[in-house]
Amino acid sequence: MIVEEKKISSEEKYNGYIVHVFKDEVSLNGKKAFREVVRHKGAAAVLAVNENKEGFFVEQFRYPVGKPLFEVAAGKIDPGEEPIVCAKRELFEECGISAEKWTELGPMYSSPGFCDEVIHLFLAEGLSESEPDPDEDEFLDIKKIPLPEVLEKIRKGEIPDAKTQILVLRVCDLLGIK
Amino acid sequence: MIVEEKKISSEEKYNGYIVHVFKDEVSLNGKKAFREVVRHKGAAAVLAVNENKEGFFVEQFRYPVGKPLFEVAAGKIDPGEEPIVCAKRELFEECGISAEKWTELGPMYSSPGFCDEVIHLFLAEGLSESEPDPDEDEFLDIKKIPLPEVLEKIRKGEIPDAKTQILVLRVCDLLGIK
Repeated sequence: MIVEEKKISSEEKYNGYIVHVFKDEVSLNGKKAFREVVRHKGAAAVLAVNENKEGFFVEQFRYPVGKPLFEVAAGKIDPGEEPIVCAKRELFEECGISAEKWTELGPMYSSPGFCDEVIHLFLAEGLSESEPDPDEDEFLDIKKIPLPEVLEKIRKGEIPDAKTQILVLRVCDLLGIK
Repeated sequence: MIVEEKKISSEEKYNGYIVHVFKDEVSLNGKKAFREVVRHKGAAAVLAVNENKEGFFVEQFRYPVGKPLFEVAAGKIDPGEEPIVCAKRELFEECGISAEKWTELGPMYSSPGFCDEVIHLFLAEGLSESEPDPDEDEFLDIKKIPLPEVLEKIRKGEIPDAKTQILVLRVCDLLGIK
């Protein structure tokens, strides 16, 4: 049985630049419980694929997990920004790529048990390359890799980032790459 | 260029039951920056598939996103618990299912830009069904659905949960389900 949880009260625990953390009291089925919620402004992620079926990726140090990760281009949505505008901006800033053809692949909730972050997923094709323009505190390597190679790494469990796994798997499915 | 970020100092912002939130000062390339980090104990998620290629899923209200979501069985790792033990426990508690054959599909970082949560992914086959034993404040519906149907929903962007998208896509790829 699915029971809707209704907010009784909300206590702000931390108001940061990226996350806004609350401890809410909720009612469910006549009982009370607490829910910790990390609120996030949302993000967009994009897999850019060229005519040779190569994908563009970035590798960057991720402080929370203490190591560099292999990921698709992605970033936080600015206030009032449309997800597709964010995806275009991030692909250009991180990889220096513009794209003619954009396909929306729907939303992804990264961890809906405690966090409301939604990442809007896109495929970009018809690419034009120029010089990337990363944020001042963003250090990353751009990687252009054949999608079958990346798919094989995902099958082996070697690419842990969630949005990257989903985008590569869905784009390979869509484009018939095995 | 990938630059390792080293901790200079760490300020605890919230120590909850599920999340532990910090604002750390880091050095990168001789400069200083702040990183907000949500620390989480980790989780395991499992897609159970029977001999008819039906998958077992749960639907439950997710307070952070304000609606019910369609997901694979999953849950937080208890202190000192092995991921596979957690996966077996959660599949039994949520769906009443035990499985003979377990396949490890590797880790998933849900949102490594600000959170260290890792979800360990598993495929379970050779199923035995009994009565589920959910946590006291866990209300959910169990759904047994043919995997090709779920795959089609994912292609349409209708299943937003990240771990569920990844497990269905990877298991369908592994089992040759189209």
